[in-house]
Amino acid sequence: MTEKTQATRRRGRRPGGADTREALVNAAREVFVEQGYDGATVRAIATRAGVDAAMVNHWFGGKEGLFAEAVLKLPFNPKDVVERLLAVEADDIGEAIVRNFLTIWDNSRGGIFTALMRSVTSHEEAARALKDFFFKHVFTHVIAKLAPDNHEFRATLVGTQIVGMGMVRYVVKFEPLASADIDTMVAAIAPTFQRYITGKID
Amino acid sequence: MTEKTQATRRRGRRPGGADTREALVNAAREVFVEQGYDGATVRAIATRAGVDAAMVNHWFGGKEGLFAEAVLKLPFNPKDVVERLLAVEADDIGEAIVRNFLTIWDNSRGGIFTALMRSVTSHEEAARALKDFFFKHVFTHVIAKLAPDNHEFRATLVGTQIVGMGMVRYVVKFEPLASADIDTMVAAIAPTFQRYITGKID
Repeated sequence: MTEKTQATRRRGRRPGGADTREALVNAAREVFVEQGYDGATVRAIATRAGVDAAMVNHWFGGKEGLFAEAVLKLPFNPKDVVERLLAVEADDIGEAIVRNFLTIWDNSRGGIFTALMRSVTSHEEAARALKDFFFKHVFTHVIAKLAPDNHEFRATLVGTQIVGMGMVRYVVKFEPLASADIDTMVAAIAPTFQRYITGKID
Repeated sequence: MTEKTQATRRRGRRPGGADTREALVNAAREVFVEQGYDGATVRAIATRAGVDAAMVNHWFGGKEGLFAEAVLKLPFNPKDVVERLLAVEADDIGEAIVRNFLTIWDNSRGGIFTALMRSVTSHEEAARALKDFFFKHVFTHVIAKLAPDNHEFRATLVGTQIVGMGMVRYVVKFEPLASADIDTMVAAIAPTFQRYITGKID
């Protein structure tokens, strides 16, 4: 437990206030690293933060949102992205993936993506948590709806192209891809996502 | 300059011996980080190591091989990979890329790839050096021979899928892709490389 968490708990706080939110983020970071995404329960995080478990839904919309903020430091709620992806037609999923991810990442000029990859390559636990979270709890929903078979393998294939797209655009920054506009990226890369989700892969 | 390099130089050595090789690797690591791949000359590296520039060809087959050992720590000579890729028919390049890279990386159980990504995500210079080296001096040769147009953009697209394939297989280790055999990987991913190099991307 961090000193901050202890201090917050000792100080007491109003239920539902900003200090509750901060206590949850601090507790969640510890519990997710210790237990992994699947092992960490909302109840365990709330208990460690000394707050009611309902506050997790109140502030973060659930475990995914708390994980995103505490560990992945995403500047968006992954549930919103999944909802947008679930709303498109099957034939448009490739394009939707490129547009959604690049729009979100471009907004932070790649800083969020780079920070995420740095923690994933340096900490085995972060890699495990990302894997559990991103693929199993985010992507698999989209793929289960749209893919004909091999859902898990297809999800991992999608993961290769998402991660690689970010690495070249934001980390290695190789031109002309790093500065290519989103329409150019869609034309080149959307067919890859489309095939990985709805096309022939064997 | 490292203490080791200075010590080696003071001690003197037989031309062409193993200590010459080590002095070159140490000097190269410094010069590549200071100057980037393009800015670093064989002459500058040899001068810093206190050896004849011909020793770079003798031990490493040239600047690429020295860079690979000193900075990327690759367990293979990239020139060999490029030669193998240049030898295949245009329609087989996608498959050749998947087979060559996975065979090399699987041999180190992904350790080499993970170390490379860790340095690339942590050090701006390493990312720049990798970019200069890998794409401009390795991949562009293959693509210039096989691609109809947009060579640089196609090279960066190939880069996204290579890096992403390695990240999911070796760093995040998401199953079933992490343990998939190479034939399964070829069937799923080779068409992506093939399209990025010889197919329609706009």
